[in-house]
Amino acid sequence: MNDQVKNYGLEEAIAAVAARGTIREIYFVACGGSYALLQEGQYVVDREAKSIASYGYSSAEFLSRAPVRLGKDSLVITCSHSGNTPETVAATEYARKAGALTISLTNLADSPLDKATENTVFYEWDPLAVTSKHNSVMLLLLVFGILDKLEGNSKYALVSKAVPALHDMGEKLKEKYAAAASEFGESHKREPVIYTMASGSNHSTAYAFAICLLQEMQWVHSACIHSGEYFHGPFEITDFDTPIIILKGLGNARKMDERALAFAEKYSKRLTVLDAEDFGLEAIAGEAAEYLTPIMFNLVLRVYAVELSDSRGHPLTVRRYMWRMEY
Amino acid sequence: MNDQVKNYGLEEAIAAVAARGTIREIYFVACGGSYALLQEGQYVVDREAKSIASYGYSSAEFLSRAPVRLGKDSLVITCSHSGNTPETVAATEYARKAGALTISLTNLADSPLDKATENTVFYEWDPLAVTSKHNSVMLLLLVFGILDKLEGNSKYALVSKAVPALHDMGEKLKEKYAAAASEFGESHKREPVIYTMASGSNHSTAYAFAICLLQEMQWVHSACIHSGEYFHGPFEITDFDTPIIILKGLGNARKMDERALAFAEKYSKRLTVLDAEDFGLEAIAGEAAEYLTPIMFNLVLRVYAVELSDSRGHPLTVRRYMWRMEY
Repeated sequence: MNDQVKNYGLEEAIAAVAARGTIREIYFVACGGSYALLQEGQYVVDREAKSIASYGYSSAEFLSRAPVRLGKDSLVITCSHSGNTPETVAATEYARKAGALTISLTNLADSPLDKATENTVFYEWDPLAVTSKHNSVMLLLLVFGILDKLEGNSKYALVSKAVPALHDMGEKLKEKYAAAASEFGESHKREPVIYTMASGSNHSTAYAFAICLLQEMQWVHSACIHSGEYFHGPFEITDFDTPIIILKGLGNARKMDERALAFAEKYSKRLTVLDAEDFGLEAIAGEAAEYLTPIMFNLVLRVYAVELSDSRGHPLTVRRYMWRMEY
Repeated sequence: MNDQVKNYGLEEAIAAVAARGTIREIYFVACGGSYALLQEGQYVVDREAKSIASYGYSSAEFLSRAPVRLGKDSLVITCSHSGNTPETVAATEYARKAGALTISLTNLADSPLDKATENTVFYEWDPLAVTSKHNSVMLLLLVFGILDKLEGNSKYALVSKAVPALHDMGEKLKEKYAAAASEFGESHKREPVIYTMASGSNHSTAYAFAICLLQEMQWVHSACIHSGEYFHGPFEITDFDTPIIILKGLGNARKMDERALAFAEKYSKRLTVLDAEDFGLEAIAGEAAEYLTPIMFNLVLRVYAVELSDSRGHPLTVRRYMWRMEY
């Protein structure tokens, strides 16, 4: 165990998948912010895998669906920061019992999740700094490592090569967006509702900001709108005073974000636009850049959340229910 | 074409799948309300299929992801009520070009979607009545018909047998909920935000009510919360005056809804609870009942939406952007 902690378990987990022989499908299963994180991995498999199916579920939904297919050709990747989210531990145990191979990401060794799973990948997580052991980084290395091992995937090398540059890029971005974030906090401190919008690799980032940062940590009403779905219902809510945070991604999905932004700009004066093209990811990761955008969006959005919480006098650490009672 | 219109194309579509031989995966692809509808089918495959993978995508996201796996062993089911949703027509053409078998649901013969697809299944749709050709009914018969043909599925017979009873059940439910719906409309007419919450087969119903009925047709802020995810962020938004419409489903998922409701009841005085156990579906469909719950929830929720729109003096037909301009 100690050795595994030391090297974070990444290589062992990838080797366990390779040793398994046939993996026909990968399930990404977690709750809340960890679920949003894993969807970054599910997106990679969805876009890149030549023959492997992939699914994303909130842990309770996974247990409820109890897919008949689940078995020895399945890989189930779960995640819990504390390692003690009951639904995620239960999902991991359920998957293992069904014969699936299990890999779990967590920050905490010897946690219930670490004990329930066959292969643990440990990560570090500082919401305001990207290290080479950052949760999203470890997830990307795991998923691309698996794809490369099972099917061959040239983007594994691109991602690996980009990792060392991420920390400094993040530090620069925090500086770059500091003034805009402060302005956002002040100008949005009385908003009762703030929407987020994104697509592709960043949809789960926008989802996490809506449910974890705004609803959970700020008690501000929010919903994540998919940039493509925007035109099929949600756009009717757009008005001059409707606040929407729009993430412009890279790759194929960018077109969806651009179209949504072009429309929203005409009818709302309360847009906050963050553009992944301003991050510099294409220079360090080439064709794999779109998979790294959530890392930088999460970092920059955290700076915005900190400023909003300061302006509102409502610390991000305050909870009224979570961890404070049985539920 | 005329013959196909006459018999709605259902048997032909199922036969086309059977004739195909190998179907390894089914994609459910549409926009907005049609996307929500198709997710009812995706849920069935997810729960029931022994070896077939299934995915749900908004049409633009499907085109953007451009899954490498898509090919001759894939079935792509698309849907557009008018048959002229550009992204869905494009998704159908894309899938067909990739070698996938295509089946499309629509209300309109000779529409662009009808022309783009290989197999059309026509449906009827009255938001306030469930006929045996209702969109959800046709979708369920299609999906269970396919599963039964490819893998054998005993619930196809259960669903088929239940269909003739749905119309009268719907009529009775409209009466049963009339007073409660009217009270909901009056008591919620000044709410700026109304949440919906559900899980399992009804999650997409709650999603549709949030984005199509509340955001699009009432310009009321809304978000669909997953009952299982509720405890991992969104529940912190719960307060004595937070309005949430909670759908209690059947089957495995019911536990998630019950847990969320038990918590929400403690802290909000503004809950609206609709319980599928009050519909009588188990008596007519047995173990397949959970798959029919969206049909009745959609109907009852429509009655609630009509009452809300009456109380607000904001007809459900009003749009400020949709169909009124280029976007």
